[in-house]
Amino acid sequence: MVRVAVVGASGYTGVELLRLLATHPLVDVVCVTSRQHEGQAIADVFPSLVGAYDLRCEPLDVERIAGRCDLVFTALPHRTAMDVVPGFLQAGCRVVDLSADYRLKDRNVYEQWYQEHSSPELLAEAVYGLPELYREQIRAARLVANPGCYPTSIGLGLAPLVRNNCLCLKSLVIDSKSGVTGAGRAAKLGSLYCEANEGFKAYGVASHRHTPEIEQTLSALAGEKVVVNFTPHLLPVNRGILSTIYADLDDNYELEPLLDLYRQMYADEPFVRVLPAGQLPNVAHVRGGNYCDIGVVVDQRTGRVIVVSVIDNLCKGAAGQAVQNMNLMCGLEENMGLKLLPVFP
Amino acid sequence: MVRVAVVGASGYTGVELLRLLATHPLVDVVCVTSRQHEGQAIADVFPSLVGAYDLRCEPLDVERIAGRCDLVFTALPHRTAMDVVPGFLQAGCRVVDLSADYRLKDRNVYEQWYQEHSSPELLAEAVYGLPELYREQIRAARLVANPGCYPTSIGLGLAPLVRNNCLCLKSLVIDSKSGVTGAGRAAKLGSLYCEANEGFKAYGVASHRHTPEIEQTLSALAGEKVVVNFTPHLLPVNRGILSTIYADLDDNYELEPLLDLYRQMYADEPFVRVLPAGQLPNVAHVRGGNYCDIGVVVDQRTGRVIVVSVIDNLCKGAAGQAVQNMNLMCGLEENMGLKLLPVFP
Amino acid sequence: MVRVAVVGASGYTGVELLRLLATHPLVDVVCVTSRQHEGQAIADVFPSLVGAYDLRCEPLDVERIAGRCDLVFTALPHRTAMDVVPGFLQAGCRVVDLSADYRLKDRNVYEQWYQEHSSPELLAEAVYGLPELYREQIRAARLVANPGCYPTSIGLGLAPLVRNNCLCLKSLVIDSKSGVTGAGRAAKLGSLYCEANEGFKAYGVASHRHTPEIEQTLSALAGEKVVVNFTPHLLPVNRGILSTIYADLDDNYELEPLLDLYRQMYADEPFVRVLPAGQLPNVAHVRGGNYCDIGVVVDQRTGRVIVVSVIDNLCKGAAGQAVQNMNLMCGLEENMGLKLLPVFP
Amino acid sequence: MVRVAVVGASGYTGVELLRLLATHPLVDVVCVTSRQHEGQAIADVFPSLVGAYDLRCEPLDVERIAGRCDLVFTALPHRTAMDVVPGFLQAGCRVVDLSADYRLKDRNVYEQWYQEHSSPELLAEAVYGLPELYREQIRAARLVANPGCYPTSIGLGLAPLVRNNCLCLKSLVIDSKSGVTGAGRAAKLGSLYCEANEGFKAYGVASHRHTPEIEQTLSALAGEKVVVNFTPHLLPVNRGILSTIYADLDDNYELEPLLDLYRQMYADEPFVRVLPAGQLPNVAHVRGGNYCDIGVVVDQRTGRVIVVSVIDNLCKGAAGQAVQNMNLMCGLEENMGLKLLPVFP
Repeated sequence: MVRVAVVGASGYTGVELLRLLATHPLVDVVCVTSRQHEGQAIADVFPSLVGAYDLRCEPLDVERIAGRCDLVFTALPHRTAMDVVPGFLQAGCRVVDLSADYRLKDRNVYEQWYQEHSSPELLAEAVYGLPELYREQIRAARLVANPGCYPTSIGLGLAPLVRNNCLCLKSLVIDSKSGVTGAGRAAKLGSLYCEANEGFKAYGVASHRHTPEIEQTLSALAGEKVVVNFTPHLLPVNRGILSTIYADLDDNYELEPLLDLYRQMYADEPFVRVLPAGQLPNVAHVRGGNYCDIGVVVDQRTGRVIVVSVIDNLCKGAAGQAVQNMNLMCGLEENMGLKLLPVFP
Repeated sequence: MVRVAVVGASGYTGVELLRLLATHPLVDVVCVTSRQHEGQAIADVFPSLVGAYDLRCEPLDVERIAGRCDLVFTALPHRTAMDVVPGFLQAGCRVVDLSADYRLKDRNVYEQWYQEHSSPELLAEAVYGLPELYREQIRAARLVANPGCYPTSIGLGLAPLVRNNCLCLKSLVIDSKSGVTGAGRAAKLGSLYCEANEGFKAYGVASHRHTPEIEQTLSALAGEKVVVNFTPHLLPVNRGILSTIYADLDDNYELEPLLDLYRQMYADEPFVRVLPAGQLPNVAHVRGGNYCDIGVVVDQRTGRVIVVSVIDNLCKGAAGQAVQNMNLMCGLEENMGLKLLPVFP
Repeated sequence: MVRVAVVGASGYTGVELLRLLATHPLVDVVCVTSRQHEGQAIADVFPSLVGAYDLRCEPLDVERIAGRCDLVFTALPHRTAMDVVPGFLQAGCRVVDLSADYRLKDRNVYEQWYQEHSSPELLAEAVYGLPELYREQIRAARLVANPGCYPTSIGLGLAPLVRNNCLCLKSLVIDSKSGVTGAGRAAKLGSLYCEANEGFKAYGVASHRHTPEIEQTLSALAGEKVVVNFTPHLLPVNRGILSTIYADLDDNYELEPLLDLYRQMYADEPFVRVLPAGQLPNVAHVRGGNYCDIGVVVDQRTGRVIVVSVIDNLCKGAAGQAVQNMNLMCGLEENMGLKLLPVFP
Repeated sequence: MVRVAVVGASGYTGVELLRLLATHPLVDVVCVTSRQHEGQAIADVFPSLVGAYDLRCEPLDVERIAGRCDLVFTALPHRTAMDVVPGFLQAGCRVVDLSADYRLKDRNVYEQWYQEHSSPELLAEAVYGLPELYREQIRAARLVANPGCYPTSIGLGLAPLVRNNCLCLKSLVIDSKSGVTGAGRAAKLGSLYCEANEGFKAYGVASHRHTPEIEQTLSALAGEKVVVNFTPHLLPVNRGILSTIYADLDDNYELEPLLDLYRQMYADEPFVRVLPAGQLPNVAHVRGGNYCDIGVVVDQRTGRVIVVSVIDNLCKGAAGQAVQNMNLMCGLEENMGLKLLPVFP
């Protein structure tokens, strides 16, 4: 059994981790932490978990936690994460960090989009936890930086085309839409039901912090520096990200050869489903599951390809991918604890 | 392995059955039927199932299906069900029927609320599939009549109080609210997004067909004829039923002794969660899971008890309960294939 | 022109008042206040108002405001309201107070359900602003206590039956459901999109503060003390209250004579729509309008009447009714500024 | 008084027309038609209208209708519209046609994207009813082709930049999202609540019929042929369209000079609201109102401009714009009957 802790368990990513781990046959959740709910039963914080967990929320005391765990999921806000991750590593735990703190390889880029980094020496060691691209490195990693939700949908959506040089890279336009869980569980005006319900808006246009992470992944795939337009929108659903991605094709491609690139790259992937020509994905079909569904269209009139990819932002976009990474790190079957199907409708 | 067929697989109950059965370790789904989608892959009808099922929808040919199956789930509209259930039984299959056709013991009552019955001789044999009340009979049954969604939430919510004679039975008022999946997947004006979204209404007031089923269960518990007011409402959510139940208390009860009756009756039940005093259930906490959550309040000012019970209408209210019944009928662990936690949020 | 101030303009009731008053031909909004948004343009706080208002939010300075206004709408939380209402009255303004502070005639009852009252001497003078019951008193009032949203739907739904002694009063059970705007615009966990969306729960069971207000109205209609069960629920829509009301009929009534009582009482009411037999109301049909729609069913099996009434909680349940009261107080046509139809869908 | 008929009144555009016209001081709705609801009171079809209309739905008999009306709104599906519009014109009525049948100037383009045209001789005469671009022609028109919802949001969003040659036109990428009313009121599987709720998908990618209409408007503004990528998505809200528009800037523009082009072009427009730098529009802020709100961002990293424009698809995107056109055609104040503010929240 792998003994794990969920640090920062009272957010939406925390409860999703606990949902998934409850049915994982080889994991024992030994500790959950929450500053806000310290001392409270986690099943009182999230009544959906009643019957599955007897744990109470502990304070975030690295030493007291590290001794009991093999692996720690840090589901904390960026900046908070980098204050505790080094301690867990020193104490011998492996870490899947769900914050942004170890995703960017370049300290300067991190500090430009976020703030000063307190443990930059770990940036080189941390492995970017997108198994479809970095599976072998993840297996050996001590610290995995779990990807952002938007970058996951975009990285998987574009990898076959970028890796195979099909695109005019500077034409990339990425229009993404995320469910409201993406804004977290903090009590903010903009996250209120009556502000988001029956509403729709763009936000962070040309300035969202996931931009450099997206560009880092695409640049690595392309072998050259990629700069993109990335526009996120707030979608009135609980869960789900859909990214609509536009790029000029480098050549006069038909659809099928492009789809073949997807089928080849993702043939053995347990969590990527490439849709047949003519079908397009819907966030409703991945809700609660760990899948990334991808559809592709070629517009002959404009010479552009349109890629549409969807994930559940809490699952493949966060907690599900974190469990997938844990499985890889611990030598378990990659889809263990993740065999549940999406809940439709 | 239990070989099963899902007859009527293209409705919401059908896809929920397939979601649950996909992770059931001892079930093999060998056949799905759909008149409307005959010949089509079930994973095309429901893309959430891609990767889990290779089956194509067959026509509803009892003979061709019965030979391959041990047990059949009939997820058909009432009236259609009773035309095929006898055939499956004769061919040696066991049947969990999710329609209303075998729920009512009294043929006259059935014919008064529905229509003429074509196989009334089966009414005596059919077992009402509410495991918390009829577990032993279900184990031995050839034909299980899977309860209605409203009656499940109400029967479980009231059983401890009715069985222990705590209520003035003729004062019972039941105010229920159901998510839109309860209306099925037929393309009807009233089920359109823009008709239901941001709306709320009562329907079938004093005339809903679940009334006699509710009264049958309560009468059996009480040992006398019970007549109730039952008012369903259409709730703008996909899944979930919440029933708010009012009754005059027969005596000057405090809350804790009443809660004790719930805790005693449901102590060993895997799928009923009795909330502590002061807590009330929310449909969001059972979404996608097979639980019934129950909260109880005593109003000293009026001498009434208010019971609030919630289920996921597609899961404990239909497909989940059907799988639970199948497990009992086949001698399997009762919660096999049903260990998944609710998806929150 | 009536010069008015909207005190507490940055809540949902505030923006609804401003929406309605913008098209009122004889009202000039001269002042809006908001502590939180002091100095900010109200059209920046609520971009829906851009083009209609040039006002900036002022601090709540009674003296500075009173001199410029004929009438003040106080859209403040209870407790805060009673600290400023006496000042506005003294300065010669008339006041429509949308808080709970002047609704209850009995100071003891107020203090039992809320807190100490700082201006109890005004309770006798304040007129309960339900025009369908207290129209003449409202015309002459200096201070109108605008009714609560739940009590409005319930008072209008029951008045004809209670006034005509049709009910067994102690059998009254009231099951109400309110949209999330009813919880206000404060950033609270329970009001977050992902907590309310796809959820449904009862709250404040047997303890909600609107209970004494409901009982006060019904007692006045009945001429005797009425005690009720009142259960509110949180409905995942922005706007709308639906109350389902149950009572034993005092006699063997048919539906039509009961409906006649409604038709008689509301014949000349501009904002009450009594539905024909067989029809039931939907919150979607009053959204954005000042109507109360009422449907009635008699259940011959149980001898009960079921009344279903709906309003838009922000409009007839708050701001619309406040404008209606203002019109009466100022001798204007009662439906001035309120002629807009509900927005469907 | 202008006597008008609403032909095809039982759809969502029909009820929105009736909502708006009910408060129009100089319009008398003398006739509503509906094949499906013939003989039924329109207020039974749409209970939101109770109290405002006494009309019953008539069959679509051009002769019987034309004699009583000055102007006819045809809110019919394309193809059906062109069968009746010529008759109304011949009978001396003016027509605002809300279908697609007279929007495209080039018969070949129409027939390529739709079907054969039965009255192509009217295409030259029909005026495209976007008042911000064609106000003078509309005033004199006998037949106005009311623009599509997507094209309205896009035409208004791009006009200042295209007219002033700021863009590299072939780089245009338009990503639009529409509420479900855009799919009409027909009972279709894809429009069901449980299919659209908590879902999000692209549809009609590179093939949606509004593409040539968008290109016609932009080509006219640019003075050259414009070809675009247009991708619509289905948004789980009742009302609202948001278009996110991307284009390479032709030069090294700063934001303010671009915003000035918007402010200049729309300075006197009653229904276009240009947001200040740093603000972005939300469909929630135009719901139920006739506004188009526009926000602009310049991304210096990529040299692109991102324009975000929102409308209520039923109001400025259909019925509101139709009333605006009627006002112009009849010499009335342009915003008569349209002074109502958006309903937030």
